[in-house]
Amino acid sequence: MQFSLRSLNELMEALKALPGIGEKSADRLAYHIIHADKAYTDRLINSITEVKKRVRFCRSCFNLTEQEPCKICRDPDRDQTRVCVVERPSDLNCLEASGSYRGLYHVLHGAISPLDGTGPENLKIQELMTRLKRDKFTELIVATNHNVEGDATAHYLYHCVHKMGARAPKITRLASGIPIGGSLAYADSATLARALAGRGEIG
Amino acid sequence: MQFSLRSLNELMEALKALPGIGEKSADRLAYHIIHADKAYTDRLINSITEVKKRVRFCRSCFNLTEQEPCKICRDPDRDQTRVCVVERPSDLNCLEASGSYRGLYHVLHGAISPLDGTGPENLKIQELMTRLKRDKFTELIVATNHNVEGDATAHYLYHCVHKMGARAPKITRLASGIPIGGSLAYADSATLARALAGRGEIG
Repeated sequence: MQFSLRSLNELMEALKALPGIGEKSADRLAYHIIHADKAYTDRLINSITEVKKRVRFCRSCFNLTEQEPCKICRDPDRDQTRVCVVERPSDLNCLEASGSYRGLYHVLHGAISPLDGTGPENLKIQELMTRLKRDKFTELIVATNHNVEGDATAHYLYHCVHKMGARAPKITRLASGIPIGGSLAYADSATLARALAGRGEIG
Repeated sequence: MQFSLRSLNELMEALKALPGIGEKSADRLAYHIIHADKAYTDRLINSITEVKKRVRFCRSCFNLTEQEPCKICRDPDRDQTRVCVVERPSDLNCLEASGSYRGLYHVLHGAISPLDGTGPENLKIQELMTRLKRDKFTELIVATNHNVEGDATAHYLYHCVHKMGARAPKITRLASGIPIGGSLAYADSATLARALAGRGEIG
């Protein structure tokens, strides 16, 4: 929508540059911003400014942090022998929220996706290899997503780490299968095939 | 997602207050903002500030404007005898873009929706009535949406205007029917019923 107001057009263009925001969403957001009280827009502007000023990437694991190194990397109680590779900071947060992992992390900031023009060189893979050579990890847990891009990234990582020979840590990947609470009737055939291939003995 | 960073949590909360932005979208937007270069976030912040400073509602028609009265209200070449009632400023823009209307407008800023708690008193209906009594319009074109809320608003307006008696302008509503380029096979039954009820003679 081309509005006749210059300031509104500029806001629409800035909003449309955000991911997942098209013409209609930008229109709805701009309209909300115009209607909102000043306290809200001040809070929005201030939070953007603060995030840009404070948030950076941890030099070691590339998680988002306000301090260097990040809270997880500087926690001596965490298992220093395991590193878990995730695509995005939000994946790391999901694993932390599950409370089932106490090792270190490495955030790749994406996955290999030739269609989107993302190759291994655009990810923090070189930094991971440097880390694996420097620190003595016994296990590398690949927790990339279980889709085409995540699978391709997992395979690429396997080959990189395999080249380290005897010094390579054990490489594992999160199990694929039926979610807890899920029923077979709603599982797709690819998930069923993986769940069957990964079946384990009972008891 | 609860991040461990205070500044990031505050940005997430501010983003989630926007319409249509849930947990996952806020996470994606925040991540984009962190990755974006400073020039972009400066542009975003600046455009929000400018819009809040410059954009207001026209005192007469309640369209968005930077000047008082708005461009349409102060244009002497427009047909001053017709007023078209729309729900939102974006609807007004759609009609302007079609180039098929040259009269004045009145923006209600919503539609009657008991479920959302929007009653006539929350809309610019009182202001419309004042305008109708003051200015001599010959026609009031109701261009609210053709859904439950838009229909309810149109009926409410009809009753309000009807009470004006002999001084009431003619009230019309946009036609309902098959869109141009649309085929009967894809039209829903409610649209077909309206198109049939509103059928006209050929030639």
